[in-house]
Amino acid sequence: MKERVEKLYDLFEGADAPDVILVTLPKLVYYFSGFYSEPHERFLALVCVKGESPFLVVPKLDYEKAASVSTVTQIYAHEDTDNPYEILKRHLPEKVARIGIQKDHLSVNRYEALMQTTGAMQAVDVEPELNRMRVIKSETEIAVIKRAIVCIEEVFRAVIPYVKPGVTEIDLVAEMEYRMKKLGADAPSFDTMVLSGAKTGLPHGVPGTKEIQEGELLLFDAGVFVDGYASDLTRTFAVGVVNTRCREIYDTVLQANMKMIEAVRPSVTFGSLDHAARQVIESKGDGEYFITRAGHGFGLEIHEYPSIHGLNPDLLQAGMVFTAEPGIYIPGLGGVRIEDNVLVTPTGAEVLTSFPKEWTVIGV
Amino acid sequence: MKERVEKLYDLFEGADAPDVILVTLPKLVYYFSGFYSEPHERFLALVCVKGESPFLVVPKLDYEKAASVSTVTQIYAHEDTDNPYEILKRHLPEKVARIGIQKDHLSVNRYEALMQTTGAMQAVDVEPELNRMRVIKSETEIAVIKRAIVCIEEVFRAVIPYVKPGVTEIDLVAEMEYRMKKLGADAPSFDTMVLSGAKTGLPHGVPGTKEIQEGELLLFDAGVFVDGYASDLTRTFAVGVVNTRCREIYDTVLQANMKMIEAVRPSVTFGSLDHAARQVIESKGDGEYFITRAGHGFGLEIHEYPSIHGLNPDLLQAGMVFTAEPGIYIPGLGGVRIEDNVLVTPTGAEVLTSFPKEWTVIGV
Repeated sequence: MKERVEKLYDLFEGADAPDVILVTLPKLVYYFSGFYSEPHERFLALVCVKGESPFLVVPKLDYEKAASVSTVTQIYAHEDTDNPYEILKRHLPEKVARIGIQKDHLSVNRYEALMQTTGAMQAVDVEPELNRMRVIKSETEIAVIKRAIVCIEEVFRAVIPYVKPGVTEIDLVAEMEYRMKKLGADAPSFDTMVLSGAKTGLPHGVPGTKEIQEGELLLFDAGVFVDGYASDLTRTFAVGVVNTRCREIYDTVLQANMKMIEAVRPSVTFGSLDHAARQVIESKGDGEYFITRAGHGFGLEIHEYPSIHGLNPDLLQAGMVFTAEPGIYIPGLGGVRIEDNVLVTPTGAEVLTSFPKEWTVIGV
Repeated sequence: MKERVEKLYDLFEGADAPDVILVTLPKLVYYFSGFYSEPHERFLALVCVKGESPFLVVPKLDYEKAASVSTVTQIYAHEDTDNPYEILKRHLPEKVARIGIQKDHLSVNRYEALMQTTGAMQAVDVEPELNRMRVIKSETEIAVIKRAIVCIEEVFRAVIPYVKPGVTEIDLVAEMEYRMKKLGADAPSFDTMVLSGAKTGLPHGVPGTKEIQEGELLLFDAGVFVDGYASDLTRTFAVGVVNTRCREIYDTVLQANMKMIEAVRPSVTFGSLDHAARQVIESKGDGEYFITRAGHGFGLEIHEYPSIHGLNPDLLQAGMVFTAEPGIYIPGLGGVRIEDNVLVTPTGAEVLTSFPKEWTVIGV
């Protein structure tokens, strides 16, 4: 934690550097202080002033919790009737030239209030620097992510015996989320997705009361947060005998998934990973049905930098963790997605997920 | 839906009115179009141009869903490799003077991209107008909220038989969320809270593996989304015989809850509701332990305008729906919160929640 804060203070170096930095994304406040809270519309910030110790501004109802767990020990609380920016101002230098903010996260209203309160001349976006920091996961972080993966794989194993014709998508979601809690997950890391039949053709489909039927594809996309860190796993199964086209796209997607993972090593571009997967799918004539990016970073959030799409020129580095999730989505017929979680190692990739991905028939 | 969009177009009237309005909060896109998706970091907007029909800009992987359910029929999709602002610009007038945005929701980065792409001279905050619109719930909306309340009350009834010494907080959360899904809820409307013993003294405590013990207070705070709309219910129970101070604060909070609800009628201030509750608690000498606001609006989101705190001068109007949730939180001892959902009627209040709130002993 101390090391992370030191790196944050490195951002004060340089000619156009800010003299105050505000970290406002709750998960990043956690990253730097060990204190996590989702304050909803209330103001929460970790505030760093050049040359001074960092402090927290928290809603009063979080004060006790912050005081008991945060490694940042100066904590100022505000009540719902207070103006939190006034409280902030009291603890800032009289003159602030440049204020470092998270431009991807801070709302325009907060930005305007901050600029007015602090009298800062300029706002500097520190989001890219923060992303660069957190994209490299420490061994401790990877160990926690692995626990989140163990948990979701256990959930997948536990739910499969429940699959049979007549069970609804929602029934299976309920079983999965129940297991997550029982296994000690903080929460699902996103809305648990169970889709069947033609609905598997929707990358963002919503589980409903549709009953699973024999002869359909069945897609599970789910993850959990464990101690703040996410996992994100997708597998697609056959419920009994499905038509040959479905089997065909499964084989193509599996090959794309494996080619993408083979391409992982330091110093190649994220774009090249997307290409590796896309090439397989295009070579089978299904390129038009691969309508998503190939993957995304994750960690404290379920979607973090990087976005793995064909035009991303950034380079992989050891310690990065992301999803590899090519898919084929054919309207009216169905879709297949096979998603693993991958860690970049000094020499290649470590696939953190171990749930089997060969063609599997279940439920009959 | 059509009526709502018409009201949105009313915002084009007036001297300083915007000539383009962007609705970017996913739940508000739903409010105006019937199409809901959580696009995470992808760009989603309902765009209204003065004198022209509205259109949607959606991520490509949401296109099919939007096309099948949205009442707004012009839909432009962008892929992850596209610049969504360029796609937006193509469908805007060449000259945009003032652009209406949601300043509470739009990030600084999006704001800067929008201003640059559109060449707009000025950004106007339409959030207050949007809040004014949605704060008055239609009969249809109230009917959906009532269904969300019926669901969470059913969940409360179902979980109580599971309460006994030795069961953990997380066990009870798992049971409740399982029931929510089984009863057809879209999702919990926020992280389900089950706290016991001294932890009930934390307004934002987090359920853990702590076991329920005889002689403790047990607090449930939970809600669900049903067809997009939320409910939000808190009850505090006694597990067996608790000490008299706990019983005392329960009686005080219950009286505060009832006094607050009695004060509800059109044309009084939100501040006066907070005062009504606070007065009861202060009169018993426990004012310092009522460290939260008295309630908050809800509907499509779990926290909406208004915030019911002592300094809110805005006036109640018939059709508003909010929580009444005074509480007493004593560090180290425990806390009590009793939360109902209240609709403002032309003559007073309709309490939408009906779960009993008299002192109740369970689990033994």
